[in-house]
Amino acid sequence: VPTVRSSNKLKILNDPIYGFISIPNTLIFDLIEHPYFQRLRRIKQLGLTSYVYPGALHTRFHHAIGAMHLMSTCILTLRKKGTEITSEEEEAVLAAILLHDIGHGPFSHALEELLIPGMSHEKLSALLMEELNHQLSGRLNLCIEIFNNTYHKKFLHQLVSSQLDMDRLDYLKRDSFFTGVSEGIISTDRIIAMLNVINDTLVVEEKGIYSIEKFIIARRLMYWQVYLHKTVLSAENMLVKIILRARQLLCEGKKIFTLQPLNEFLEGRITKASFRESSDTLLKFTQIDDDDVFACVKQWQFDTDKVLSTLSRFLLNRNLFNTEISKEAFNEEHLESLSKLITTNYQLNDKEIAYFLIQGKLQNNAYNAQKDRINIYYKNGQILDIAQAADQLNISALSAPVEKFFLCYPKDCLI
Amino acid sequence: VPTVRSSNKLKILNDPIYGFISIPNTLIFDLIEHPYFQRLRRIKQLGLTSYVYPGALHTRFHHAIGAMHLMSTCILTLRKKGTEITSEEEEAVLAAILLHDIGHGPFSHALEELLIPGMSHEKLSALLMEELNHQLSGRLNLCIEIFNNTYHKKFLHQLVSSQLDMDRLDYLKRDSFFTGVSEGIISTDRIIAMLNVINDTLVVEEKGIYSIEKFIIARRLMYWQVYLHKTVLSAENMLVKIILRARQLLCEGKKIFTLQPLNEFLEGRITKASFRESSDTLLKFTQIDDDDVFACVKQWQFDTDKVLSTLSRFLLNRNLFNTEISKEAFNEEHLESLSKLITTNYQLNDKEIAYFLIQGKLQNNAYNAQKDRINIYYKNGQILDIAQAADQLNISALSAPVEKFFLCYPKDCLI
Amino acid sequence: VPTVRSSNKLKILNDPIYGFISIPNTLIFDLIEHPYFQRLRRIKQLGLTSYVYPGALHTRFHHAIGAMHLMSTCILTLRKKGTEITSEEEEAVLAAILLHDIGHGPFSHALEELLIPGMSHEKLSALLMEELNHQLSGRLNLCIEIFNNTYHKKFLHQLVSSQLDMDRLDYLKRDSFFTGVSEGIISTDRIIAMLNVINDTLVVEEKGIYSIEKFIIARRLMYWQVYLHKTVLSAENMLVKIILRARQLLCEGKKIFTLQPLNEFLEGRITKASFRESSDTLLKFTQIDDDDVFACVKQWQFDTDKVLSTLSRFLLNRNLFNTEISKEAFNEEHLESLSKLITTNYQLNDKEIAYFLIQGKLQNNAYNAQKDRINIYYKNGQILDIAQAADQLNISALSAPVEKFFLCYPKDCLI
Amino acid sequence: VPTVRSSNKLKILNDPIYGFISIPNTLIFDLIEHPYFQRLRRIKQLGLTSYVYPGALHTRFHHAIGAMHLMSTCILTLRKKGTEITSEEEEAVLAAILLHDIGHGPFSHALEELLIPGMSHEKLSALLMEELNHQLSGRLNLCIEIFNNTYHKKFLHQLVSSQLDMDRLDYLKRDSFFTGVSEGIISTDRIIAMLNVINDTLVVEEKGIYSIEKFIIARRLMYWQVYLHKTVLSAENMLVKIILRARQLLCEGKKIFTLQPLNEFLEGRITKASFRESSDTLLKFTQIDDDDVFACVKQWQFDTDKVLSTLSRFLLNRNLFNTEISKEAFNEEHLESLSKLITTNYQLNDKEIAYFLIQGKLQNNAYNAQKDRINIYYKNGQILDIAQAADQLNISALSAPVEKFFLCYPKDCLI
Repeated sequence: VPTVRSSNKLKILNDPIYGFISIPNTLIFDLIEHPYFQRLRRIKQLGLTSYVYPGALHTRFHHAIGAMHLMSTCILTLRKKGTEITSEEEEAVLAAILLHDIGHGPFSHALEELLIPGMSHEKLSALLMEELNHQLSGRLNLCIEIFNNTYHKKFLHQLVSSQLDMDRLDYLKRDSFFTGVSEGIISTDRIIAMLNVINDTLVVEEKGIYSIEKFIIARRLMYWQVYLHKTVLSAENMLVKIILRARQLLCEGKKIFTLQPLNEFLEGRITKASFRESSDTLLKFTQIDDDDVFACVKQWQFDTDKVLSTLSRFLLNRNLFNTEISKEAFNEEHLESLSKLITTNYQLNDKEIAYFLIQGKLQNNAYNAQKDRINIYYKNGQILDIAQAADQLNISALSAPVEKFFLCYPKDCLI
Repeated sequence: VPTVRSSNKLKILNDPIYGFISIPNTLIFDLIEHPYFQRLRRIKQLGLTSYVYPGALHTRFHHAIGAMHLMSTCILTLRKKGTEITSEEEEAVLAAILLHDIGHGPFSHALEELLIPGMSHEKLSALLMEELNHQLSGRLNLCIEIFNNTYHKKFLHQLVSSQLDMDRLDYLKRDSFFTGVSEGIISTDRIIAMLNVINDTLVVEEKGIYSIEKFIIARRLMYWQVYLHKTVLSAENMLVKIILRARQLLCEGKKIFTLQPLNEFLEGRITKASFRESSDTLLKFTQIDDDDVFACVKQWQFDTDKVLSTLSRFLLNRNLFNTEISKEAFNEEHLESLSKLITTNYQLNDKEIAYFLIQGKLQNNAYNAQKDRINIYYKNGQILDIAQAADQLNISALSAPVEKFFLCYPKDCLI
Repeated sequence: VPTVRSSNKLKILNDPIYGFISIPNTLIFDLIEHPYFQRLRRIKQLGLTSYVYPGALHTRFHHAIGAMHLMSTCILTLRKKGTEITSEEEEAVLAAILLHDIGHGPFSHALEELLIPGMSHEKLSALLMEELNHQLSGRLNLCIEIFNNTYHKKFLHQLVSSQLDMDRLDYLKRDSFFTGVSEGIISTDRIIAMLNVINDTLVVEEKGIYSIEKFIIARRLMYWQVYLHKTVLSAENMLVKIILRARQLLCEGKKIFTLQPLNEFLEGRITKASFRESSDTLLKFTQIDDDDVFACVKQWQFDTDKVLSTLSRFLLNRNLFNTEISKEAFNEEHLESLSKLITTNYQLNDKEIAYFLIQGKLQNNAYNAQKDRINIYYKNGQILDIAQAADQLNISALSAPVEKFFLCYPKDCLI
Repeated sequence: VPTVRSSNKLKILNDPIYGFISIPNTLIFDLIEHPYFQRLRRIKQLGLTSYVYPGALHTRFHHAIGAMHLMSTCILTLRKKGTEITSEEEEAVLAAILLHDIGHGPFSHALEELLIPGMSHEKLSALLMEELNHQLSGRLNLCIEIFNNTYHKKFLHQLVSSQLDMDRLDYLKRDSFFTGVSEGIISTDRIIAMLNVINDTLVVEEKGIYSIEKFIIARRLMYWQVYLHKTVLSAENMLVKIILRARQLLCEGKKIFTLQPLNEFLEGRITKASFRESSDTLLKFTQIDDDDVFACVKQWQFDTDKVLSTLSRFLLNRNLFNTEISKEAFNEEHLESLSKLITTNYQLNDKEIAYFLIQGKLQNNAYNAQKDRINIYYKNGQILDIAQAADQLNISALSAPVEKFFLCYPKDCLI
């Protein structure tokens, strides 16, 4: 188990988005230096999105530090407005936002709950925080309380996790920036300047209402333009199928190339229970990242299994599947003609067809009024959910989730 | 009457927003050089908005050139997509957008239809184009046809004047930029890249739908954050009252300071009819600008008329009236108590009170589906109004105009 | 004499450059609200530069607030590094930078020492600070000490006035921004992050050396591209000639249009001595601005004096003189042929020719090692002038001032 | 051997820097789609620079497309100024700049000439262009002529490779942008607008001289702030030592983890001659990238060889060596005491010490007047080298190369 080194510099980092980011205290410095956190340098924020937006190579490492930076700014603002935040709380909430994504595995959401069924990145973040807290002799106690929302000052948790948390503010801005989809760029400065805490609840001051509207619209735009982009869907679902094929071959006892300790995750041997049973499991998790997966995919393009090699070669060379999106479920006829064509073109058997005809659903939920809320605070003391507060019904209209069906298959099978 | 000089350079202008702007042809160069157009250098785009956003000093001159630049880009894009635009049409539509605001008077919208009752800036633009066409021996014939929407290719007019014209694209971006309200900054590049012409109608391609949504939201945000900002309302309404007071004093035969030829407009002697009766009227109009008005206000702060001098001094020193905004009409009681307080504090008579207790209505209409439409063009050939096309009802919700009441009065009368 | 109002809000201002600017304390708020300071809203930072760069309409008002904002950031940085700055000193140095340019008159440098011979803007700033201090019952005592460099902590004065002061950092960035000459945009964040105070002297830390090099180069670039641009030279020198012609006519007793109290400055009656003799003089100075000058120029285009009306009309309609620039003095022959041509074309007498054939010298001094220095602080404790410190000799090379000759005359006299 | 697919779309790509990039023709599209080019997605532009600047994850893929985009702009500009460029030449010069870096291997310059001794990336680019030309049946003939400077229009080669080529313009801007070192950001728009071709030579017009000065200074700044940053030096030299250690172990017959076909390059078996001897060699080269190298380093951290595992673990966890930089060679005494300390701390033998005490030289050459020149074109027809042309001697001063010595060793051995 690696130990935390004790170097003590309060450095300044360059960030193309915010200019300069200061490391605010030695705990944050030590956490950033820790191998568990350094690992995030090798985990892309947006999976395979760079296949469409070549600039989108930014990592969870950069995002976590950016969100921590916004938290610093936010603390300054709230204190100016009279909210009490002790220096212990400050350190804890900064650590909580820094570590909120530490449980992300290779390619972030793209492979989440696939490599370890049933384990979300949040659960893994919680486990890793516990482990770090152990290594740091309890310095993260308060941080963990805030993260788990068991601390009495609820607004601190809201800053870490809610519909207007520092996580969302940073990722929306960062993803827009690096993809070049400039319309998604939000004014984090302005939004933070409008935040306040009333009765232990995070609120947005009245005059910030249009900025919030715009934030929600920007989020919606990013969903359709980036997060659920057809070609990204295609690439990421191809990678999922590659992993599933590798797993199947391994389970059938076939010898394919793998790397230690990724092989254990590929075989599907590691489950939620494994983490309870052995402390080694978590350590193994911290040793896998994007590079392992792609190093395997690169070897697999020469594998003797046709499905594995074809999918791998296609992905590496960006020969991506065609994607259809529809508001209704695809009709059986269409699926059948596609199946036939794919079977013929690629000479597949019935079990193999599912690797080449990928079906799924996607959902966009720009603002979920059912979950937690974005509260608007009026000068007269009233507090209203943004969906009620906006002049128009548009926000509540936006809060209806949009669900669509998708279908991916080889380009040469386009009918 | 000034004549058009014939210098022939195709210059490059620096623009903080677009980087470089090229003057595309000699007609455009000659028009920019013309004193009627140079006058726009002394007409602020946003009236007295700089009292709230100190960067908002940009002029109609800069906006007109910016819109002309966007038109150039747009023509390139449409031609690439197969829309035929002849070089005569190109010259004409560029001239039309360049001249679309040439009829703006001092402080743009702030004093519109006040100095010349019944004359909108569009009517004055039309008159000035006719005059320029006369001076240029008919070189603006086609330009005027497009401007007046009598030319058979209707999309050319739409590029000059519609809910998605180059005027709006530039002013939204420019106003956001110079005010520093960065959330209003739209991606003109992306929007223009999504434009197309189908059946002689300007349309937005399907994949541009979220950009248009965002454009409408940005417009809405700019309305509340900038165009209808309380303090801007206050300043501009104070200026209106100053002009009205000057007019009243002049009509009563009182001697107050004025400048030639502004005095004729102040006296209210110039009406719609005057332009028909004398060709001099238009020339006089081209000789007044922001500087004349403010030079008078500065003299008036020392006038013996208390109303005129007080308002002028208040405006110059930014001692602006307090503004109340309400969804309902203000109740009579409230108005009466304010009247009393103002009368006492400023020792006014009944006729004078209206200069210190300003009432009015304001309206925001981000998208007006009743007027012309923003059409979305689907790959399957269908064309839908954006209000029908968006996944949600939010655009149609937005299209309901919002109307509010406002009230401005001296700060020391705040109850 | 206007009095300072006592409203107490710590507002936030939008700035296209820095995003948000916070008013740090009530003294700064009161100073900004003061009519003397509000007047700066009507004084353009860059004279007539907008004739070349149409975005360059920013004012001394905006610059002063921007420089004050940088000072806030700088104080934060220096305190973090252990420099003691008391809250009194903070208030004082913020006030000093806010007021450093309050003595600028119409069109800033363009008419400096012309309207009031022998009075630089710095001297007028000092007089106005004294007056404000009087009105504020001594609240500016420490501010004035710092401004005059009589306070014992010398680095505070250096922050207000030296080769690396907050004034220069802001104006370089602001002028680049609004002209659109993006290459002049410096990283004020980075430069400020590199500042430190050693032995009461402002220094730049070693690793900031390349940023300083770049700052000096940017300054040099701005000189040639903007501050000394041929066409700006032409416009500003034409305005100077207009003022001089008006003065001559007034001195000869001719009746021309003028405005109160600008007329007294035009007549040349106000000198350095006038300020000592009457307290009214200073008040009158605070009542003139760009608008008065241009309102006069606009009236003068119809004056019966041919020189005055021609120059005024030319300037208003941007029919600017042609400019020649040369490393050597222009030869007599060339000047004589020009004189002849001008005399013929404009039918001038010998005394009038000087208004149409303008001669002068211009100088660029990107870094003046003779004046004060930019000190680089090395980790080993050594402090060196940047000119010695840079790896190369380039900075010392740059510090040699460049002097050139210029000549402006009507375009139709181009030989 | 993969074949080129024939899909024909002229797509638009998002770029955080330029906004939109259009694919100008089908040849460019086909080249981008080719697996050899897609491979560049897995080759970081700046090696391990992201260890210091976390945003610097951009790839050779993005850079090549960016440079191609600048070339498009440049062609438009030159044609407007009257330079003839046929559509064949256009296609060829666009392909040449797109492919100019296709020969870069894992981590670009960091491992150049290490994995294949004696083979620069330029030579590999040339080989790969030949191979692509073969696959494309000669469509790249003209492209290769331009790349090799055998085509008669010499300025086309200058646009691809000279001291002011599109390569430099893009990488300087891109590297500044993604590192966040905003001072390095150059105005590519302005520089390109100033280019011209006179007597078949690329020149910069007179008024662009200050922009070029600034470009050279920006380049100099990027060298010291980024390309030769101490910590980047340390990380990249540690990686070099890891590769050398792996090679040594493999040569000694020790079994360590490797990947196909990287192992052949690690063993040092592939030399310049191999490319002549077997066509397979080039194909193998196109199969290795950053991922292979890092996948190995990750496995090596658990190797039984102490040197290999220690260096690998240190690099992965960013426990980077300390770096000293000096103008003079380090003295023997200092080196000896370091050697002793390292030997003790890490229990190394004499042969192993060189892996932990890294020595080298670094050089910065912002402008090399000996090589090719940046020519300034004066209105009077004169053409001068920028070093002669600038007002001052500073450019020629800058052209003296700066050489320094460096030393890297474990942090715990800091004396």
